[in-house]
Amino acid sequence: MADVEIDVVVVGAGPAGENVADRVVRAGLTCAVVEEHLAGGECSYYACIPSKALLRPMDLMGEVGRVPGLELGPVNVSKVLARRDEAISHLDDSGQAEWIAKLPATLLRGRGRLTGEREVTVTGADGAVTVVRARHAVVLATGSVPVVPPVEGLAEAKPWSSRDATTVREVPRRLAVIGGGVVACEMTQALHALGAEETTLIVRGGRLLERVEPFAGELLAEAFGKSGIDVRFNTEARRVERSADGTVTLHLSDGSTVEADELLVATGRRPATGDLGLDVAGLDVKKPVEVDDSMRVPGSEWLYAVGDLNGRNLLTHMGKYQARVCGDVIAARAKGESDDRPSLHDTADGYGAPQVVFTDPQVSAVGLTEAAARDKGFDVRAVEYDLGNVGGAYLLGDGYKGRAKAVVDERRKVLLGVTFAGPGVAELVHAATIAVTAEVPLEKLWHAVPSFPTVSEIWLRLLEEYGL
Amino acid sequence: MADVEIDVVVVGAGPAGENVADRVVRAGLTCAVVEEHLAGGECSYYACIPSKALLRPMDLMGEVGRVPGLELGPVNVSKVLARRDEAISHLDDSGQAEWIAKLPATLLRGRGRLTGEREVTVTGADGAVTVVRARHAVVLATGSVPVVPPVEGLAEAKPWSSRDATTVREVPRRLAVIGGGVVACEMTQALHALGAEETTLIVRGGRLLERVEPFAGELLAEAFGKSGIDVRFNTEARRVERSADGTVTLHLSDGSTVEADELLVATGRRPATGDLGLDVAGLDVKKPVEVDDSMRVPGSEWLYAVGDLNGRNLLTHMGKYQARVCGDVIAARAKGESDDRPSLHDTADGYGAPQVVFTDPQVSAVGLTEAAARDKGFDVRAVEYDLGNVGGAYLLGDGYKGRAKAVVDERRKVLLGVTFAGPGVAELVHAATIAVTAEVPLEKLWHAVPSFPTVSEIWLRLLEEYGL
Repeated sequence: MADVEIDVVVVGAGPAGENVADRVVRAGLTCAVVEEHLAGGECSYYACIPSKALLRPMDLMGEVGRVPGLELGPVNVSKVLARRDEAISHLDDSGQAEWIAKLPATLLRGRGRLTGEREVTVTGADGAVTVVRARHAVVLATGSVPVVPPVEGLAEAKPWSSRDATTVREVPRRLAVIGGGVVACEMTQALHALGAEETTLIVRGGRLLERVEPFAGELLAEAFGKSGIDVRFNTEARRVERSADGTVTLHLSDGSTVEADELLVATGRRPATGDLGLDVAGLDVKKPVEVDDSMRVPGSEWLYAVGDLNGRNLLTHMGKYQARVCGDVIAARAKGESDDRPSLHDTADGYGAPQVVFTDPQVSAVGLTEAAARDKGFDVRAVEYDLGNVGGAYLLGDGYKGRAKAVVDERRKVLLGVTFAGPGVAELVHAATIAVTAEVPLEKLWHAVPSFPTVSEIWLRLLEEYGL
Repeated sequence: MADVEIDVVVVGAGPAGENVADRVVRAGLTCAVVEEHLAGGECSYYACIPSKALLRPMDLMGEVGRVPGLELGPVNVSKVLARRDEAISHLDDSGQAEWIAKLPATLLRGRGRLTGEREVTVTGADGAVTVVRARHAVVLATGSVPVVPPVEGLAEAKPWSSRDATTVREVPRRLAVIGGGVVACEMTQALHALGAEETTLIVRGGRLLERVEPFAGELLAEAFGKSGIDVRFNTEARRVERSADGTVTLHLSDGSTVEADELLVATGRRPATGDLGLDVAGLDVKKPVEVDDSMRVPGSEWLYAVGDLNGRNLLTHMGKYQARVCGDVIAARAKGESDDRPSLHDTADGYGAPQVVFTDPQVSAVGLTEAAARDKGFDVRAVEYDLGNVGGAYLLGDGYKGRAKAVVDERRKVLLGVTFAGPGVAELVHAATIAVTAEVPLEKLWHAVPSFPTVSEIWLRLLEEYGL
């Protein structure tokens, strides 16, 4: 017997879970959201929000540094941390809980587990157990957890996870970072700018940001080098130890050692499938929860998964997008309406999700890289252009350096992917996201005139390079 | 008998004229460009480029002021002016002349006048006369000149034109500005930020930036007020006088007076049709040179006009766009190819040109305002959203204030216009330009997911407001 019966149960109140609740309630269904930690999820307290709050001063230091006539005083780190604390609501989720209550939806605090068909059992911190039965759907949205590589002594050395870095209270003078992806790059640069004078980045592969076009990682590595960040490519930590005085020593694969006050490990994340009761639905707990393009688990009538958990794209905005699709689909099916409308299919994930890396230079990209497009068998032509040669970029500051690349499907004459790297390119990518996702023909893009003198004039230059 | 015979003659070496030359030469034709003043035109030396160079420090002062932990020292005005001078190549056009030579095209220095069919007579500064005959086309691209209102004593008071403002060598302590459009707003704010402590803006109408959505001008007026700029709406100068000590006194329509060290008049521009020999082609010298969508003068086989001169949209990027169309059309016709390809028609001007105003807050817009769309008889629905409520905007700084509006054609479910006002919105508009120009259906825009946390998430909010 269930303690609570409701239309939809969502497990996980991160941005994806919250958006499912929003959409199903808006459509007239009732909804309960189960959350063990903080309503609002990783993004709001430990990921996107605090990292961007820490990166924004660095971003502006770069911008100001390129404009003659302006001079910044030393950064006041405690004020930066105070604003970060404000941005993460001092780790208090009452604002988010209120938002959920106002939908209105029910927030159930505790750990949610699948315990039967359409059934979630919630165990509170005090051990109290509530069985919740969903009339229509159960949506899993528990996100992801960091992966820690199996390095001797690493766990014992108590390294920082991304959470420790984003909620930093005292910036270490000597910082070592293991990783080369988005989180590693962003936090390396943010902490370096906020006082980690001796910063070493240990990268297993040969470049930074391996999932985007190579030039982006190259520009970033160059900026790291210029600012005094020590980047060690093709290097791994073999053994780690922390001494009594707190110093961490990393013994690297090239025989050298690095000493640091703190060590951040940012080597990726995996779907948080553990202890979720996936076996009840016959699912493998070691894999992402695979879903169809309505976010439903194949072979199931009632089980859905959105966000990092389904492994499609570990990005907040894609989780939220999937949640909108999922919530709308559940509502359509509950009402016996067609579930085949265009808004009820996840098409965006297939094009290649947009992403912004808030480093200096920023990196933003959407769709496929040239290599990925070739791998997929497209008839590809790629064009590149130096952003520094665009008038609008020159006017942003002296020595503006950046690059853009467009990957064209030669058969259909549409864009498959676009990548920007340079100061302030975060807001350039949405134009590309529209062009790629809506498959706007180059012939039409030619008449979309970029305003002079903006950096967006790169669009004209890329099309001219293509031969238009 | 002509002194020079060539395929295409372009009168005016501003951005529009230069782009015609670029396109026809690229297509294999020969070209001569006639320029009386500086190759590169108004934009490069007296308009877009220097104004943005002067506005960039102010833009960053605003950005930094919203980020706790950062503090700017006083602006070093002479360094700002030095960078402006560099940006305008110290008013030396040899770089542009070289660019033309490298196309290759011929730069003829002097005043160009139509003196017959396909014939332009060039009079040099030394009085030397060259008659140039075009085998295929003559393209007029002489731009525009400022309009000075007929106010008693105004001319005698030697007011500044926009040129004097953008090439300012010493910022006046007391500045009066007549106007309320883009140039007036930009230069008022730039000069105020660079030291014009007492700045008064005299606006004939009831709001700033009358051609864009009203909220944009309202936000800007609010910012002007907060920074201490004295804005007088619904006010006109009735009489102006400059005293022996240089002080300018404006007697205003409300009976009050304003004293200033300099007076800037920025009340619009008109096509530079004077002394161009338009009568040779049977054209009215008091009107813009009307053209069809191939940029050709109706009733003529050989005469074209691009840029400000044709009055379509007095914007550099639209002039350049028209020039691309025009150059390609001329080449196609010269070769006897079809002149009906999509790239050979000016379609962009019809949608409503994109424009960015580099004030703080910035304003960017494309397409039709709600009022203009209704006037044109569209079945309109408009949605608005506060930019400050977008997570990505909050992360840019405390007290971020801005607004966005989308105007939807309810029949076709496409965007007719989009307007943004807020810090840093310059690069947001190109996404809207693509959406409006390519008529991307809302249903497709819904799958173009904005990256979190960027300001571009405004797209999601606007579509949600619409009901998606």
